[in-house]
Amino acid sequence: MTGEDVFDVVVIGAGPVGEIAAARVVRGGLTAAVVEERLAGGECAYYACVPSKALLRPMELAAEVDRVPGLELRGPIDAPAVLARRDKTVSHLDDRGQVGWIEDLPATFVRGRGRLAGPLRVEVTAPDGTRSLRARHAVVIATGSDPLIPDVPGLSAARPWTNREATSVQQVPKRLAVIGGGPVACEMSQALHSLGAHETTMLVRGDRPLGRTEPFAGELLTASLLESGIDVRLGRSVTEVRRPVPDGPVTVHTDDGASVEADEVLVATGRRPATHAIGLDTIGLATDGPIQVDASMRVAGVPWLYAAGDVNGRSLLTHMGKYQARVCGDVIAARAAGAPDDRPGLRDTADDRGAPQVIFTDPQICAVGRTEARARADGFVVRAVEYDIGAVEGAYLRGEGYTGRAKMVVDEDRRVLLGVTFAGPGVVDLLHGATIAVAGEVPLDRLWHAVPAFPTVSEIWLRLLEEYGL
Amino acid sequence: MTGEDVFDVVVIGAGPVGEIAAARVVRGGLTAAVVEERLAGGECAYYACVPSKALLRPMELAAEVDRVPGLELRGPIDAPAVLARRDKTVSHLDDRGQVGWIEDLPATFVRGRGRLAGPLRVEVTAPDGTRSLRARHAVVIATGSDPLIPDVPGLSAARPWTNREATSVQQVPKRLAVIGGGPVACEMSQALHSLGAHETTMLVRGDRPLGRTEPFAGELLTASLLESGIDVRLGRSVTEVRRPVPDGPVTVHTDDGASVEADEVLVATGRRPATHAIGLDTIGLATDGPIQVDASMRVAGVPWLYAAGDVNGRSLLTHMGKYQARVCGDVIAARAAGAPDDRPGLRDTADDRGAPQVIFTDPQICAVGRTEARARADGFVVRAVEYDIGAVEGAYLRGEGYTGRAKMVVDEDRRVLLGVTFAGPGVVDLLHGATIAVAGEVPLDRLWHAVPAFPTVSEIWLRLLEEYGL
Repeated sequence: MTGEDVFDVVVIGAGPVGEIAAARVVRGGLTAAVVEERLAGGECAYYACVPSKALLRPMELAAEVDRVPGLELRGPIDAPAVLARRDKTVSHLDDRGQVGWIEDLPATFVRGRGRLAGPLRVEVTAPDGTRSLRARHAVVIATGSDPLIPDVPGLSAARPWTNREATSVQQVPKRLAVIGGGPVACEMSQALHSLGAHETTMLVRGDRPLGRTEPFAGELLTASLLESGIDVRLGRSVTEVRRPVPDGPVTVHTDDGASVEADEVLVATGRRPATHAIGLDTIGLATDGPIQVDASMRVAGVPWLYAAGDVNGRSLLTHMGKYQARVCGDVIAARAAGAPDDRPGLRDTADDRGAPQVIFTDPQICAVGRTEARARADGFVVRAVEYDIGAVEGAYLRGEGYTGRAKMVVDEDRRVLLGVTFAGPGVVDLLHGATIAVAGEVPLDRLWHAVPAFPTVSEIWLRLLEEYGL
Repeated sequence: MTGEDVFDVVVIGAGPVGEIAAARVVRGGLTAAVVEERLAGGECAYYACVPSKALLRPMELAAEVDRVPGLELRGPIDAPAVLARRDKTVSHLDDRGQVGWIEDLPATFVRGRGRLAGPLRVEVTAPDGTRSLRARHAVVIATGSDPLIPDVPGLSAARPWTNREATSVQQVPKRLAVIGGGPVACEMSQALHSLGAHETTMLVRGDRPLGRTEPFAGELLTASLLESGIDVRLGRSVTEVRRPVPDGPVTVHTDDGASVEADEVLVATGRRPATHAIGLDTIGLATDGPIQVDASMRVAGVPWLYAAGDVNGRSLLTHMGKYQARVCGDVIAARAAGAPDDRPGLRDTADDRGAPQVIFTDPQICAVGRTEARARADGFVVRAVEYDIGAVEGAYLRGEGYTGRAKMVVDEDRRVLLGVTFAGPGVVDLLHGATIAVAGEVPLDRLWHAVPAFPTVSEIWLRLLEEYGL
């Protein structure tokens, strides 16, 4: 195509966020184009959430089997079978299904690198030429984020792995060094360790992994990592990385004078919004740091520009990006129609209250809302209670030696939950109840009448409320 | 002891319901005695919920392993190991731990058969004599329920199994006939089948098992039962049972002229409140049928008498009995103190909205609130939506071939949930979120901001709300 193609909305980025934004504007009666240089479906579908869970599931299940007398596994996890299933979950890195999904909305998929080229204009660069798109109503930036490689001498030159190489691994290294203590570092250490990285070393800067969650979560996880044989080194900063021979071993030096030799080094120290080289300068915006948006995902001072997902820095979580995309797509459609734009679904209220997050380790770590420390720092009058999940009959019936802990943080002024954290095997699906309670601001006196079924792990809810004094 | 012992409250029955009622009145500053003829801890702890889950867990987990490439079990479930763990979960039928728990409240445990002997009086008969107890404030009946053996020719004489024999099985019969299609019938058929009852036949009167849940739940379960090799015969009434030789095989005849020969026959056709021979006649109450109570668990016209749990017929579920016990214990303490007795925790609001229930089969069946049919019959303006859980990414990541379904029933007038049903592997912990939403009457527009974490099965919530039109 040549000349200028006009759509109601142009979305830059076809990850889950861009896809959902497009779906919601189309549902609202508008036309949309979605521009993507790489794979439609985004980082999440091919190199993050999806493959990591495929790699973690056998480990999680093997641990469950270990806790249940009467079942025994034939041997260790069959890594090639797991990698083959991983390949299937990422559609063998083929995005035809995702492109088809976008086209079926219907929306127009445009392959190429999209960048802003002035107000309501997007220029798409592809191997076969350049194409200009014009948006009648809005442009949505959904370019996500990129892994952050810290400025450590020798690190970049050592060709470190990021989430991309770790989740798409074909040959599991025997010796793995992991720099970082966040969700990606913890998940991938455990996954790869279970699949053959027998010598896995985690180098964590803080005094525990998962520094943003309740302290007990990181502590329980550390105990589990250590017990499985992972060498977790806390309070270590990486000072230098050396890989003298390409394809040879890599040595990671830390500030205590120690070092680790490994076959690969995985860096998981955070991500940065993908805001460079997308033409923000053409409309006078900064080209680094997250794009600041209001609760309707609109950029301050640029009424036609929206940013949803990692790129706005509110929560670097796929589900929150998809949520923001629903808000954003719906509000664009409402504004385009001249309809009221302040209906309940048209503002992001979930990010401020604290996004739900699951870390698919063993134990799983699930949290929503504020930690106790955060709630106090935010000025709430707080009371927090904790309880041992392993003391709940439902947990005992899941297996021998169940270890877990839960905590709820109560706003004493309003008697509603500010945050809940669960750490333990298989707690993932407990989380959404907490998310409903936090998002719905269900008073404690009403939660008391939400009776958990016996004998399920959900009885932890009853124990927490009793511990609180109900 | 001789003469008359006086307590603030006397509780007849030391199952979970009686235990919790005692705990709550003691917490409220009163003294309590708990009378139990059999094992403290009750049916649930020794012959129902607890051992059945211990028997079912390996089967559930084996099915999960089957769905995950990379893991393989060494062989079939090791039944003796499972039975040994079952024995452990029921404390080898020793109730010292439970008695100790009661005494630590502190409350007085009285071993013997308790029966009312006029207003505020309880007579306890034990092998070593009779003892009279007097209650200053209240008597709580928490005697539970007994299995109902239907009046079928030859059935009683054939020494059928009930939940007690099935859950305490030491030698799993090769051939098992099961009469009934409710939760116990389904759970025990699957459990015993997985442990060696290779020829298991279920004789179900209705057109599907679990007749009180949404139709799809019973249908999915039937498909799973059949696929595992259980012979499920629907629409069959048992006309006659014969066991001519004691310890010999038993033959069950059905109304279509067919019959089943088995080593044992399990009857699971319901339960009846244990109200006979507990002295209800001494205060002019009927001695059969459930004891009618108000929402504070008090018996109409008898201001000092309360009944909680199965015996009042509101919900034959342990967790609902425990909930009623909390209501009942707290309201007794409030009334004894002359305090207001209408605080939020002092009335049962959960039973009317629909108790949560989990059936621990594969697939698990979990429901709370009203089914669509029930909601319509109750006069609500209803809209219901369903969604295939297997189409949720989080379910696909749990394993290959995940099959499940979810349904939500919406009160269109108030835009709140009346009921939710999940059927699928591992859905048990999804339920409590639904229970919170139903009990908390969280509006749909607020549920929309309760973001399910990606990629978890909880995203079924998002799909249901989208399907509804949000």
